[in-house]
Amino acid sequence: MKVLITGGAGFLGQRLAGELLARGALHKTLQGGGAPEPITELVLLDTTPAHALDDARVRVETGDAADRAVLERLIDTDTAVIFHMAALLSAEAEAEFDQGLRINLDGTRALLEVCRARGHTPRLVFTSSVAVYGGTLPEEVRDDTALDPQSSYGVQKAMAELLIGDYSRRGFVDGRVLRLPTVAVRPGRPSGAASSFASGIVREALNGETAVCPVSGATSIWLLSPRKAVQCLVRASEIDAAVLGTRRIVNLPGVSTTVDEMIETLSQYGGAKAVARVDWEPDEVIERIVTSWPGRWDDTRARKLGFVGDTSFHAIVQAYVEDDLPWAEKRAWVGLRKKGE
Amino acid sequence: MKVLITGGAGFLGQRLAGELLARGALHKTLQGGGAPEPITELVLLDTTPAHALDDARVRVETGDAADRAVLERLIDTDTAVIFHMAALLSAEAEAEFDQGLRINLDGTRALLEVCRARGHTPRLVFTSSVAVYGGTLPEEVRDDTALDPQSSYGVQKAMAELLIGDYSRRGFVDGRVLRLPTVAVRPGRPSGAASSFASGIVREALNGETAVCPVSGATSIWLLSPRKAVQCLVRASEIDAAVLGTRRIVNLPGVSTTVDEMIETLSQYGGAKAVARVDWEPDEVIERIVTSWPGRWDDTRARKLGFVGDTSFHAIVQAYVEDDLPWAEKRAWVGLRKKGE
Repeated sequence: MKVLITGGAGFLGQRLAGELLARGALHKTLQGGGAPEPITELVLLDTTPAHALDDARVRVETGDAADRAVLERLIDTDTAVIFHMAALLSAEAEAEFDQGLRINLDGTRALLEVCRARGHTPRLVFTSSVAVYGGTLPEEVRDDTALDPQSSYGVQKAMAELLIGDYSRRGFVDGRVLRLPTVAVRPGRPSGAASSFASGIVREALNGETAVCPVSGATSIWLLSPRKAVQCLVRASEIDAAVLGTRRIVNLPGVSTTVDEMIETLSQYGGAKAVARVDWEPDEVIERIVTSWPGRWDDTRARKLGFVGDTSFHAIVQAYVEDDLPWAEKRAWVGLRKKGE
Repeated sequence: MKVLITGGAGFLGQRLAGELLARGALHKTLQGGGAPEPITELVLLDTTPAHALDDARVRVETGDAADRAVLERLIDTDTAVIFHMAALLSAEAEAEFDQGLRINLDGTRALLEVCRARGHTPRLVFTSSVAVYGGTLPEEVRDDTALDPQSSYGVQKAMAELLIGDYSRRGFVDGRVLRLPTVAVRPGRPSGAASSFASGIVREALNGETAVCPVSGATSIWLLSPRKAVQCLVRASEIDAAVLGTRRIVNLPGVSTTVDEMIETLSQYGGAKAVARVDWEPDEVIERIVTSWPGRWDDTRARKLGFVGDTSFHAIVQAYVEDDLPWAEKRAWVGLRKKGE
């Protein structure tokens, strides 16, 4: 089978690609048993070239994922699974309204239309977000809590969810919408997400750099590690449509924490020096967006469907240290811990 | 001020136009007091020419409300209030998927973009629907119940609601979204709405014609009379944005009834003869759509905001008899009642 990842040069896209290549195959059914089907081609589409990951199965394509002509070129009836992760992120979509609509809404619609035209009902895994929620929220958001997004990004994701639901109901695609908690701790540089700081205050601080925290310590955050997020994405592509029923949306498991608790964990890993590297610089726009998101939701359904999250924020940092912390810094903080700092 | 009604040749559009002309003016604030502002021009846009209602203030425009060029021609900075009621209705949008997206989603977006380009933040009253709800619903839908529409019409209306919310948050329009119950009893001919029968089983049966009922007698329906619907539309245009807060959506008051109860009321008005004119012809598609809608919702917020619904289905039929039943039939059923049939 062929697999397409839009946003394939992004951090999650690249990590998902690595996982898919390592597995080498995807199940078409988890209930029905039998062998998974080999992945013969993995197309990584993005506006900048993705890494080919030294694998002959990878086909790197540079182009606009919101451009129907590009999608028509890349999707054929052998494209069995599509991970649609191309997006303009939350802070960017707030700053660039038209561009957000174009990429997050029109791009998704173009993808759905190309799939519909092909007529083979591919599996479509879509990454949605905590940002679809907002307004007056209960302490713990439920599956039946209304969406009232307070950012353009959240609105665009919510609209895309609805569209994918209808295209799935009509049999044009076999859609699976994952609402992701904030995915952290990510390696690399700050992103255009309003929640970028949730990675930064750990990553930069452990890497010996200054980290900016634009929200207050009391801010609640709902988190998922990149490692678990990738496992959930793969599972979403393999799960049987029948077990989802008419509800194509899954609120993925998360860990509820506060920024203060995150700093406390940072201190356990990097000591007082790391904590001192966090600069508290309130940013009204970022704070307004991030505090409109739920601090937790009921993830019972996701867990029943076999999606697995993290056990604690400590486990999330541990995963970052194991998977992503550069070797030199890893040695440094291990040294710090040994010295009892 | 100028007022625009899209879908201005439709039944509700025409009745709203009549009401606006009779009032002659609209308040810019209900809280602030002061005199209402005269309506100097009332533009009725539709694909077929609206009736001008013998009034010099009316400007009849024939065109596609989803065509941005048409909207650009009709909306200027004097257009203070827009009632956006042009839509492809529920059964039609289920049958004609692309056309539904074009009119119900793209048309609304074009309208929002023209308003944004004008830069004067006009009041925009949008008619949404029970159809945005669906799936597993509580006995009584609440304001915070999640949307899970099971028809393309419902999906498109839900997407338009989200877009209007974001354009309002950004100050491009001053949006007011009314979720209307099924509006019945309407005069005239059957429409492209899946709920068209809710008018037909009363209207046709009282008019001496055969009425088709495509759903079972136990089906729950949430109803609002045209008379009250028009009053709610006017109020939505006059209410202060500040009292709505960030929540631009109002679930209008309704009357919860069943088809069996409607038939019982029909019998009180038209006797056994009228009831005998109802042909029960189940239609799977119609039944699936209509039964996915809520049978009632909590309308506390709407009532607090001053929106008034009907008191009973009997009152709804009474309003139809007073407002719309042709004179000859009115005399006939009064005669029937006098004879005790």
